[in-house]
Amino acid sequence: MLNLKFAELITIGDEILYGQILDTNTKWMSEELDKIGIKIIRKTSVGDQEDQIFESFTEAKKRANIVLITGGLGPTKDDITKKVLCDFFKDTLVINTHAEAFIKEFFEKRNRPFTELNRQQAALPSKCTYLHNATGTAPGMWFESENTVFVSMPGVPYEMQYLMSKEVLPRLQKLYHLLEIVHRVIRTMGMGESFLAEKIETWEDALPENIKLAYLPSPGEVKLRLTGTGQNRSEIENQINNEVLKLIEIIPDFISSTNNEEAEFVLSEILKNRKETISTAESCTGGYLAHLLSSVSGASAYYKGSIIAYANEVKNEKLNVKQETLSNFGAVSEETVKEMAENVIKELKTTYGIAISGIAGPNGGSEEKPVGLVYIALSNGHKTIVKKLLLGNNRLINIQFSAKTALNEMRKFIQKL
Amino acid sequence: MLNLKFAELITIGDEILYGQILDTNTKWMSEELDKIGIKIIRKTSVGDQEDQIFESFTEAKKRANIVLITGGLGPTKDDITKKVLCDFFKDTLVINTHAEAFIKEFFEKRNRPFTELNRQQAALPSKCTYLHNATGTAPGMWFESENTVFVSMPGVPYEMQYLMSKEVLPRLQKLYHLLEIVHRVIRTMGMGESFLAEKIETWEDALPENIKLAYLPSPGEVKLRLTGTGQNRSEIENQINNEVLKLIEIIPDFISSTNNEEAEFVLSEILKNRKETISTAESCTGGYLAHLLSSVSGASAYYKGSIIAYANEVKNEKLNVKQETLSNFGAVSEETVKEMAENVIKELKTTYGIAISGIAGPNGGSEEKPVGLVYIALSNGHKTIVKKLLLGNNRLINIQFSAKTALNEMRKFIQKL
Repeated sequence: MLNLKFAELITIGDEILYGQILDTNTKWMSEELDKIGIKIIRKTSVGDQEDQIFESFTEAKKRANIVLITGGLGPTKDDITKKVLCDFFKDTLVINTHAEAFIKEFFEKRNRPFTELNRQQAALPSKCTYLHNATGTAPGMWFESENTVFVSMPGVPYEMQYLMSKEVLPRLQKLYHLLEIVHRVIRTMGMGESFLAEKIETWEDALPENIKLAYLPSPGEVKLRLTGTGQNRSEIENQINNEVLKLIEIIPDFISSTNNEEAEFVLSEILKNRKETISTAESCTGGYLAHLLSSVSGASAYYKGSIIAYANEVKNEKLNVKQETLSNFGAVSEETVKEMAENVIKELKTTYGIAISGIAGPNGGSEEKPVGLVYIALSNGHKTIVKKLLLGNNRLINIQFSAKTALNEMRKFIQKL
Repeated sequence: MLNLKFAELITIGDEILYGQILDTNTKWMSEELDKIGIKIIRKTSVGDQEDQIFESFTEAKKRANIVLITGGLGPTKDDITKKVLCDFFKDTLVINTHAEAFIKEFFEKRNRPFTELNRQQAALPSKCTYLHNATGTAPGMWFESENTVFVSMPGVPYEMQYLMSKEVLPRLQKLYHLLEIVHRVIRTMGMGESFLAEKIETWEDALPENIKLAYLPSPGEVKLRLTGTGQNRSEIENQINNEVLKLIEIIPDFISSTNNEEAEFVLSEILKNRKETISTAESCTGGYLAHLLSSVSGASAYYKGSIIAYANEVKNEKLNVKQETLSNFGAVSEETVKEMAENVIKELKTTYGIAISGIAGPNGGSEEKPVGLVYIALSNGHKTIVKKLLLGNNRLINIQFSAKTALNEMRKFIQKL
């Protein structure tokens, strides 16, 4: 069994350096490593340049004894990870017969030609252990050398995830004696970071030595992350639990989840427990609220559908918003959004309805109704409340912020009934 | 004027190392730097540890002469970037009166208390140039030392973007004599990476010396990125244009955009030019298709709305899908999706209708209708075509893939009319 220092993640590819793709891989990998108690000391992205890749390997080896590499393994000419791995480990490429057979079969199954380029994907450094990738044609490679593990995986997210889950994580767990790390994220809404920090300062200062707090702000939300370390997982969990209970007493109205749950999951649990249903009527969010609700697996138990009334005539004809309401108050108004929520309940026969209408921007505002003005209505058919938001100029952020807030407000609405 | 070597991006914060937030900042920064011809040699993420932050500064200085740092500037105790900057530049913190006045005003405007923690945000290293951040309480800091620029910015995306746009990028442009870099991304759909590579091999091999090609695969799509460098921007653009024209002749049917446009933007342009309208009827995608359509600013010119019929009764009552169609063929069938598309056109009075019904997963499949089976219908009221997809088990990927494919298929449908 080896002694664990740290892990380092290296991504290879010009496309990340140039900002042409968003790196979601290392986020996923970090979360998975964290779950088995492996701490990451650094993440590094380099381009498709041999000297830079080589240098990153050399540096990583000094800091970490687990080095996980993604990218640069495709069949095309700009992918050079394998060449650098050979240089680094003073090794040569040989065709791996298991890999070759699998890749050949992969193409035959899909009725696609098996080319020489594809066959070269089966050429691996002779010193590595072959990691089988059932989801694609680039195998994983596992090297152990001088108390350090290097693993190379393809950069395609689902291929990397397959290799991590099936091959890499289980092997790492076996190889190292791991210290327990427990994270717990509490989501708060409705308070700025510094105001929140002052509110909970005494609590923060009294946290046990082995528990650390971090603030993770994003528009409309501040997440609090507690990280505890120790030998015994359930002991740390108990410690953290106690601290969360104390925190709830200090800021009960601002906590939207004590377990890092997205608003749509919190609402999902409530609706399933109450065996109630929901529908939505959206204008400016254009389907994003419906998307959040239906992104939860099993949503069909409580989510029946939505009417996305982007045009005013659809608000009138499909949601029965009165013509006079639209002309007297406008599509972005308390009155319109109230009718939308109450009527979508009748139209789709659900327990609750949420409606959103606003000006997402960046254009289309006026002095009276500026970009970022959003109304949200929450109704159960008998009682309806309307919330008004004043947001910024960014269309996508306004859409996301409004939809998230609506879900959180619906939760509060139901819990206060 | 300084001589430009490379830029390096450093993000500071445990939250990125632990995978608790997704790093979208460096993608945005890379794109903006690229536009003014600044090449990035590396991206590094370190945690909230003084020694690691210091080491990352030291290493970056060897490789790059522009070092852009984000994160670790909040008012709370885990933010230590300023301390390390002082160590690194052998400097001390002093209250910056401009910053102090602004932060005070910032809190007064919002009716929030101005605390000592907030005042400390105005304490900056004495050697730095103060960069005004109108969007938040953490100022930017600009250091010039031994032919190297270090800039520190907050990690909140819109604050970083404000500082980059208003302060950092204009200053960098002035300071360096920049080589021109031109990128062009061509999107292809319907061919795997290696098959595509063989198809265009001769073209690729004949590319001019100063133009490079990279393959960027993602589920359902392979993007081709051409990168040209040189002294004269329009000359490079012409060169790339010529190569794109040659490419179109080789694979005309597989190119979905020659200018890296998302399918919803391509469709948007077509509909605006034709002065036609569209509506959607969604089941398994649950509003995501509507969201994509309405995420384009100005969508109200052609997008009237959607009926999200998640439950079968909504398909029947709101989209008039015949009860016998639903019971004979099921909700996930060619017949149902055809009626959904044709009827949503009538219901919302639009030129075109798209309908999607499928099994997004991860549960709910059967032998006859497995998870990942999706039907897409495209209609103009007179003619309707149905496409069948067989996808994997990942709910979110299935939703996104189906919606994107539907938009691309709608474009092809209209163009073939």
